Amino acid sequence: MPKPNIQLLLTGNELMTGDIVDSNSAMIAQQFKGLGLDISRKVTIADNITALVNEINLLAKQADILIINGGLGPTIDDLTAQALAKATQVELVEHSEALAHLTVWCEKRDVKLNAPNLKQAILPQGCSIIANKEGSAVGFKVTHLACEIYCTPGVPRELQTMMAEQIAPDIAKKFPNQLMTDVIRLQIFGLGESTLQKMIDEQLPNWPENIELGFRAGMPLLEVKLTTTNQEGHKSKLEWYSKLVNVLGDHIIAKIENTPLSLAKHVLLELTEKNLKITTAESCTGGMIASLLTKEAGASTCFEAGFVTYSNKMKTKLLEVTKKSLEQHGAVSKDVVLSMAKGALEKSSADLVIAVSGIAGPDGGSIEKPVGTVWVAWGYKNNIKTVGLLIPLSRRYFQKYVANMCLDLIRRELMGSIQTAHYIIERKIS
Amino acid sequence: MPKPNIQLLLTGNELMTGDIVDSNSAMIAQQFKGLGLDISRKVTIADNITALVNEINLLAKQADILIINGGLGPTIDDLTAQALAKATQVELVEHSEALAHLTVWCEKRDVKLNAPNLKQAILPQGCSIIANKEGSAVGFKVTHLACEIYCTPGVPRELQTMMAEQIAPDIAKKFPNQLMTDVIRLQIFGLGESTLQKMIDEQLPNWPENIELGFRAGMPLLEVKLTTTNQEGHKSKLEWYSKLVNVLGDHIIAKIENTPLSLAKHVLLELTEKNLKITTAESCTGGMIASLLTKEAGASTCFEAGFVTYSNKMKTKLLEVTKKSLEQHGAVSKDVVLSMAKGALEKSSADLVIAVSGIAGPDGGSIEKPVGTVWVAWGYKNNIKTVGLLIPLSRRYFQKYVANMCLDLIRRELMGSIQTAHYIIERKIS
Repeated sequence: MPKPNIQLLLTGNELMTGDIVDSNSAMIAQQFKGLGLDISRKVTIADNITALVNEINLLAKQADILIINGGLGPTIDDLTAQALAKATQVELVEHSEALAHLTVWCEKRDVKLNAPNLKQAILPQGCSIIANKEGSAVGFKVTHLACEIYCTPGVPRELQTMMAEQIAPDIAKKFPNQLMTDVIRLQIFGLGESTLQKMIDEQLPNWPENIELGFRAGMPLLEVKLTTTNQEGHKSKLEWYSKLVNVLGDHIIAKIENTPLSLAKHVLLELTEKNLKITTAESCTGGMIASLLTKEAGASTCFEAGFVTYSNKMKTKLLEVTKKSLEQHGAVSKDVVLSMAKGALEKSSADLVIAVSGIAGPDGGSIEKPVGTVWVAWGYKNNIKTVGLLIPLSRRYFQKYVANMCLDLIRRELMGSIQTAHYIIERKIS
Repeated sequence: MPKPNIQLLLTGNELMTGDIVDSNSAMIAQQFKGLGLDISRKVTIADNITALVNEINLLAKQADILIINGGLGPTIDDLTAQALAKATQVELVEHSEALAHLTVWCEKRDVKLNAPNLKQAILPQGCSIIANKEGSAVGFKVTHLACEIYCTPGVPRELQTMMAEQIAPDIAKKFPNQLMTDVIRLQIFGLGESTLQKMIDEQLPNWPENIELGFRAGMPLLEVKLTTTNQEGHKSKLEWYSKLVNVLGDHIIAKIENTPLSLAKHVLLELTEKNLKITTAESCTGGMIASLLTKEAGASTCFEAGFVTYSNKMKTKLLEVTKKSLEQHGAVSKDVVLSMAKGALEKSSADLVIAVSGIAGPDGGSIEKPVGTVWVAWGYKNNIKTVGLLIPLSRRYFQKYVANMCLDLIRRELMGSIQTAHYIIERKIS
């Protein structure tokens, strides 16, 4: 069975005007990937009925499968049903299946079925309804110019469940047993894209052509992808994968199996396995490390308390950092983070600690300690390490990077790493 | 001068496979908006040289201006320069201006100019270089089939500066004095999209057709947009805007002037003006409220310390919540959040407090207190209010919603609001 031509049409003024960022098409692509299928092209247009009808006709001529996302909601700018009815030249009618869904949905939430909600049951005549377990707007399917058109809701959670439980199985039935591309994905922390490319160029100069190398510069994690599409590539991949793992060393957080885990989750898994508890003492990251840890379910096993000591006074009052130390060395210093670490350990009875104090900017820098200067103390209570670094990023990126770097330092500690992180080699100030 | 047809081509395997989410096109659209111009269509395709060349030829025929984003980087999957050279049938050559930029860029960062970086100076012959102040990859411009093609970097920060400082002024010169659409944007918290539509339908049934109403369901803030495109609409807009403001009441966070501010920033601005300090005592939100506050520059004026007391033991040890209270009422109770609030106020010497304890799930729920139950204590030290709510969202959404709801409660307190928030009316458990 040949691969179908799959295209994607995203609708929404807010996608065109830049008022919203599209995360849905990524999710849809991932779902198709699981079937061995790729989206070949993606078009985005505004909520304009004429433009919508034109584009639907254009795409339906080219594609075997068209996924339309967005425009199913209750408000007046939701036009997908109307556009499909026009393109396929049928009437819009109330669908009893959709109405029943809306009624149950509202009852469950103790909400009255109002007029805007009712609009979501008015759909093109003859379309098949696609259930929506997560929200009020059902999806629907029509066939037009020999193209199967699936109309899906814009709310990410609703879309995800609908794709996974309804649409992907439907498509899998029609296009079974696709030759899968084989992908290995690695999570990396602490190496930039060009540094990484250079390491590979220098240390693995004969990288084979049939193993495609891809990079995804995320913040804060970088992803490296090895993709093979033929038997030859499949065969030699594991060998080259091992070589790559050797080159990248402890910068590898993990091999990604399904959804990538966060750095915090990796740390929590290690802590849980070793039956250890961690605490945090944060100044410049202002609670972000604690928040990253507690975003993960099950954090309570390893995390009991965190301290956000943003002012000097509170560093003294809550963590017993001495005034003398603050005066002599300043809040952003080895001495102070070490005291913060010790104070937090004592107050929380944890086994490990991360303490961090830095200048996130935009103000507060000086010639000796410019914006981006940060001191970290981390480790086990009988073995606290410290390092001072210069990380010249804007406030937002600085906080995010530093919070994750702290988690990475703990991760390396927990795995007993003896390699030095690239960010320490590059950015150490003393 | 008629409006030009502007289209956008995004390139990148990671955009097609769903490994990355596109935030760049939103930013590009915003820049054009500032010129009174709209992007009519946006196409995304993978890093495949043949597909790229075809799409460039196709789009250049339709559009007056084409922005290509991505594929300028140092790695082997960056193909934009190659594709443009092929489409316009010129050679790829080293550009001295680009090379000079790379040399300075590396010197400034104390980084060696390596081979992958050098690739970024090899561009189509005869193209004009567009400076990149933020990164290594310069942009470039070519004219093809009477279409002006601007090639821009994928890194958001680099793109933003290049768009604002180089490309937008260039385009403004060619298409000056566009008839601007006039937009008023409002930030809302605590009303869902269909609730909001219903309020408008019921209370403002004669809403005029020449004032377009748009909604953007963000998490956690909702945006309402009033757009007018003709003189008649411009004239009556302020009148209808006032009516809308009346209907929405204190659910309005602010009118958005340029970039929307976060809820945390609004709270900090109010606190700064009133010369007040706030502290946080967080259980289920695990530091997120403190982190939201400290993400904003200048938070130190109003925020000195926050407590993350995730376990019962730490609620007792750090905030002096009594064991008796925990045993009798449970950690998620009015009594306990009230004690947490008082404890945090005492230890931090702040004027206001937010304390929160809830069941974020997926585990930990019971019949009496299901997942989603949350108690909040908030207010001034001599006037602490409490409320218990049921917010049945998944862990991630629950934490984000609750953290922002707490900030909203403080915002309402600071503005002396006497209206009850919709989320309290709908979700109160006692």
